[in-house]
Amino acid sequence: MAHPMTTKDGKPFDRASLESLMRRRLFYTPSFDIYGGVSGLYDYGPPGCALTNNIVDIWRKHFVLKENMLEVDCTMLTPYEVLKTSGHVDKFADWMCKDPKTGEIFRADHLVEEVLESRLKGDKEARGVKVEEKEEDPKKKKKKVKNITAIKLEDSVVQEYEEILAKIDNYNGEELGFLMKKYDIKNPATGGELLPPVSFNLMFQTSIGPSSNLPGYLRPETAQGQFLNFQKLLDFNQQTMPFASASIGKSFRNEISPRAGLLRVREFLMAEIEHFVDPEGGKKHQHFDEVKDVELELLNREVQLAGKTHVETTKIGKAVEIGLVDNETLGYFLARIQLFLLRIGVDPQKIRFRQHMANEMAHYATDCWDAELLTSYGWIECVGCADRSAYDLSVHMKKTGAPLVVREPRKEPLKIEEWQIDIEKKKFGPRFKKDGKTVEAAIEALTQDLREKLALDLEKEGKIIINVPGVGDGEVEVPKELIVIEKRTRVENVREYTPNVIEPSFGIGRIVYALCEHNYWTRAEDEARGVLSFPPTVAPTKVLIVPLSSHGDFKPFVRTLSNKLQDIGVSSRVDDSGASIGKRYSRNDELGTPLGITIDFQSVKDNTFTLRDRDTTKQVRASLDEICNSISNLVTGTEQWAEVAARLPAFEGQEVD
Amino acid sequence: MAHPMTTKDGKPFDRASLESLMRRRLFYTPSFDIYGGVSGLYDYGPPGCALTNNIVDIWRKHFVLKENMLEVDCTMLTPYEVLKTSGHVDKFADWMCKDPKTGEIFRADHLVEEVLESRLKGDKEARGVKVEEKEEDPKKKKKKVKNITAIKLEDSVVQEYEEILAKIDNYNGEELGFLMKKYDIKNPATGGELLPPVSFNLMFQTSIGPSSNLPGYLRPETAQGQFLNFQKLLDFNQQTMPFASASIGKSFRNEISPRAGLLRVREFLMAEIEHFVDPEGGKKHQHFDEVKDVELELLNREVQLAGKTHVETTKIGKAVEIGLVDNETLGYFLARIQLFLLRIGVDPQKIRFRQHMANEMAHYATDCWDAELLTSYGWIECVGCADRSAYDLSVHMKKTGAPLVVREPRKEPLKIEEWQIDIEKKKFGPRFKKDGKTVEAAIEALTQDLREKLALDLEKEGKIIINVPGVGDGEVEVPKELIVIEKRTRVENVREYTPNVIEPSFGIGRIVYALCEHNYWTRAEDEARGVLSFPPTVAPTKVLIVPLSSHGDFKPFVRTLSNKLQDIGVSSRVDDSGASIGKRYSRNDELGTPLGITIDFQSVKDNTFTLRDRDTTKQVRASLDEICNSISNLVTGTEQWAEVAARLPAFEGQEVD
Repeated sequence: MAHPMTTKDGKPFDRASLESLMRRRLFYTPSFDIYGGVSGLYDYGPPGCALTNNIVDIWRKHFVLKENMLEVDCTMLTPYEVLKTSGHVDKFADWMCKDPKTGEIFRADHLVEEVLESRLKGDKEARGVKVEEKEEDPKKKKKKVKNITAIKLEDSVVQEYEEILAKIDNYNGEELGFLMKKYDIKNPATGGELLPPVSFNLMFQTSIGPSSNLPGYLRPETAQGQFLNFQKLLDFNQQTMPFASASIGKSFRNEISPRAGLLRVREFLMAEIEHFVDPEGGKKHQHFDEVKDVELELLNREVQLAGKTHVETTKIGKAVEIGLVDNETLGYFLARIQLFLLRIGVDPQKIRFRQHMANEMAHYATDCWDAELLTSYGWIECVGCADRSAYDLSVHMKKTGAPLVVREPRKEPLKIEEWQIDIEKKKFGPRFKKDGKTVEAAIEALTQDLREKLALDLEKEGKIIINVPGVGDGEVEVPKELIVIEKRTRVENVREYTPNVIEPSFGIGRIVYALCEHNYWTRAEDEARGVLSFPPTVAPTKVLIVPLSSHGDFKPFVRTLSNKLQDIGVSSRVDDSGASIGKRYSRNDELGTPLGITIDFQSVKDNTFTLRDRDTTKQVRASLDEICNSISNLVTGTEQWAEVAARLPAFEGQEVD
Repeated sequence: MAHPMTTKDGKPFDRASLESLMRRRLFYTPSFDIYGGVSGLYDYGPPGCALTNNIVDIWRKHFVLKENMLEVDCTMLTPYEVLKTSGHVDKFADWMCKDPKTGEIFRADHLVEEVLESRLKGDKEARGVKVEEKEEDPKKKKKKVKNITAIKLEDSVVQEYEEILAKIDNYNGEELGFLMKKYDIKNPATGGELLPPVSFNLMFQTSIGPSSNLPGYLRPETAQGQFLNFQKLLDFNQQTMPFASASIGKSFRNEISPRAGLLRVREFLMAEIEHFVDPEGGKKHQHFDEVKDVELELLNREVQLAGKTHVETTKIGKAVEIGLVDNETLGYFLARIQLFLLRIGVDPQKIRFRQHMANEMAHYATDCWDAELLTSYGWIECVGCADRSAYDLSVHMKKTGAPLVVREPRKEPLKIEEWQIDIEKKKFGPRFKKDGKTVEAAIEALTQDLREKLALDLEKEGKIIINVPGVGDGEVEVPKELIVIEKRTRVENVREYTPNVIEPSFGIGRIVYALCEHNYWTRAEDEARGVLSFPPTVAPTKVLIVPLSSHGDFKPFVRTLSNKLQDIGVSSRVDDSGASIGKRYSRNDELGTPLGITIDFQSVKDNTFTLRDRDTTKQVRASLDEICNSISNLVTGTEQWAEVAARLPAFEGQEVD
């Protein structure tokens, strides 16, 4: 496995220089910067915005179009009731602790992690081990701790710390408070005592309408809108199962103390799929065969609970077969997620799938695997793939009474032997009067076992006695004139079930950032020349058009080329500034522009142009049509640069700095 | 001009049947429906979502790519400070009045409008005039008033009402209160007295971070993020002016009492352009010539203030020339907006541009024209095109000190004759001590006129006396040893200016709805068969694949066709349900699917298929490649159906119901 701190070409990765490039070139910028900024909020500038749009576009093709998913766009404003039912009001929270002296607020798990990591570093220094900037442990939320004190720890303590860190996501508030006491964890800046962790709900609250009487939240996920529309979507799909809905949109999370740049933000773009599947029959997937040989790096729950982090390379077919991954549908999506990540240019050496530990899972999940991407911040969760079972549909159905179920005719009618109860309605009313409905409901709620027993009583005693809380003394006698209890066969022609949901959920911003780390390198001949080697399909701009100078003769060619590229749907930019050709290309290497066309005096003479490849800096020369044709092939991925270079005559002119 | 109540083919338009279709086919649906819904919030289902995505895609091509705009994506969460500065905290409000008895809240202008319109209707009925459902007046916010009482009004009152309605957007709260008193406007349901109008801010409020000490809002427009990033965007554009930024994203408006379906909602998709232009030189536009002959229907301010609504068809070149539209840049965008609307399929007979009246304009605008689309709700503002002058950049610069300006070298250095003042700093300090800075600032702030007068005083009296509030008795004497006042020539090589902003701002949801009205009609042979004749480029799904039956022989052809269409980037759906071919096509006419491929027994024999056109229901028959090629041409707009029908052999098979 590649080390996080190396680039594609094996050189040390320098996060500071990438982040400087990304800000300088306006991939992103802190929001409200001129007002001092707000932590956890970032704006995307033109290249970041285009990169994101292109990734979303591929996502839509890879998932929505490919599998005929039903894309929906639901509102972000969500009334209290909905999120109360879904469990988010009570459980979508992190643990925070306050320094009563300074008023500072810390996220408890991050604080524990940060302090233990810093002590481990100090220990290494004390032992004379060269401390590397970053390692492969899951330190994803790490803040750079300054001023490490070189203090040697007991060997046993080192092991304890490492085990805690391997399962840091597994602790609840009480446990975190216990760890803080046990390991004497305080405000790192002041050494001040902290209050015990308390729960902080992560949703942004607002109120809807002029009279402030309808409290609401900004959605924490796009999923709820999809669940609430389940019935209508099933109708739209002509009652056919399984099917998936999908949604691309912003969600919100009021982070306690956001850091780590684009990785932990308060407003973010998600792309979520809710795949609805019959819980019976092992959650098979129709297209599983197409992906069964895809190899994934799997880090399972048991390994982590043992305080370890090693992964197993496993074919997904095998993983499902041996039960490591629960079912085909979950497995299918894990493989499809990996294929998507590779398609947009993620480094295949820097993907793994990590299973959630029990306490770490969201309140609705029964199983969950994260696609994690390796970055200089450690392994980062970029896609979650959860089995939400029937949780959401069930709770909303229970709350609202809406039938969020599938009803399908049975091929073979189902025959059920059961104890049925008939009530003599005519006699029942007069006898129980206002309590009639209550007693009736209590009878209908009787279990099969009880019914069997009561049938016997009825025969023996000529009456039954049942518990009906709230009626009389809570016990009601029903004589045999009013009731019949018999074992009969019921035939069920329709099967009704609540589907289970498999949910792949993508954090697009995190993927964008990891993609930038994976594709960043610097030219061997000049460390200052950064390159972002995005695949042409995702690159923000595909072609840079560079006239040799601002000479008037070149202008019509610039126009022709721009229009031609626009016609074939390829985004281009012109740089006719006074800078040297080399400088202009460098600037666009930083933006990840894969191709460049130079217009020179030869172009004016014979209408030929040079086409430059960003990664190799090699150039070819050809006619307008040939060039545009090659660009179209390269951008759609039907041809690679090597093929174009082999096909068209090389151009050996140099890039003048 | 077409009447609002007729469809493309001249038949009466029936809103109820379109809205029923749109809900039934899940173009949209009330959000949180199973929880009873929240007014003003709607979800888009698969066809609505795809339609919106396609329109956004064309928007991006038409504006962003075509003109190399800098697309950005800024956060929706916005801190209080920013919106306080922009004026939204104080001025982004509507007037509401409360019924103290029932607690009901009304939007004042809508209420006045509604009541006067209802009285006018009653008057018409009393006069025996057939009352039509809707007319061409700007009644865009109208609620359908039931139970109209036929009461005849004085002729003069009718005229007063009509004049008020023509300028209903022009009144402030006090004026609305006055109208309500004068015309005895009360709660229409109960007849109860209402409290006078009070201002209600339309932004959703929240707080950011765990300590609740950073109040914020959900943005009311995407514009502010673009303004705050002006400096960085100018840098990104290599300091070249003019340029435009653009943004596509959700904005929020806490409407007082939303109605009219998709037209007045609390969360909506906007696409906004901020075109930054030099205020000097008449705001020319480089490409104005390309659009100067585009004809627009213009309804100017004066006509409206006179209580009229007639429009003038004018070439935009002419309109700018005679000053009806202020400048070329504003005119350029009006024309480009119209071209965009036509491109996505808006009815050319149902577009007009209406100039805002003075009181109606947003607090930041100096001029504004709305592109209005005619619907069954009346003329609806769908695109605003405002000249925001230097308002936003100026206020943010003043508040933060960030230089939101353009600095450009002057071609000719500017020579300025002016009175300059030199201060003898060495003597100045000891003389004024702690007041030195204050006195100095007062001197520097002196106008040229005053300086000239003071130069004379200095020569005559050997001293000057200036006003410095807060120092001594407010008058300060400065002797000539401390100061020199001289007329000199200053040379300015750099020009610094705050750009003006022309802002075309699109309400995508309103456009989507109007587009549906404009493209809806029913088959002559069957009123119940609705058709949505979207242009293929915007249609949610392009092709329906229909196997004659679920016979196994057809399955491989379905797969081949699906894959082939996916390869050429065309979205398709398969309908292999048991319904008749005719039913299946009808269903997809309602979804606006422009093309259909039937797979029949002939297909199995010779690999030919029929291709059906939605609008004419005509079919042709051809080979797989021919069919796919034609589809590709039709979808990209390079060929029209008539051409395909002329080229390929007709198929005369009938649609079996």
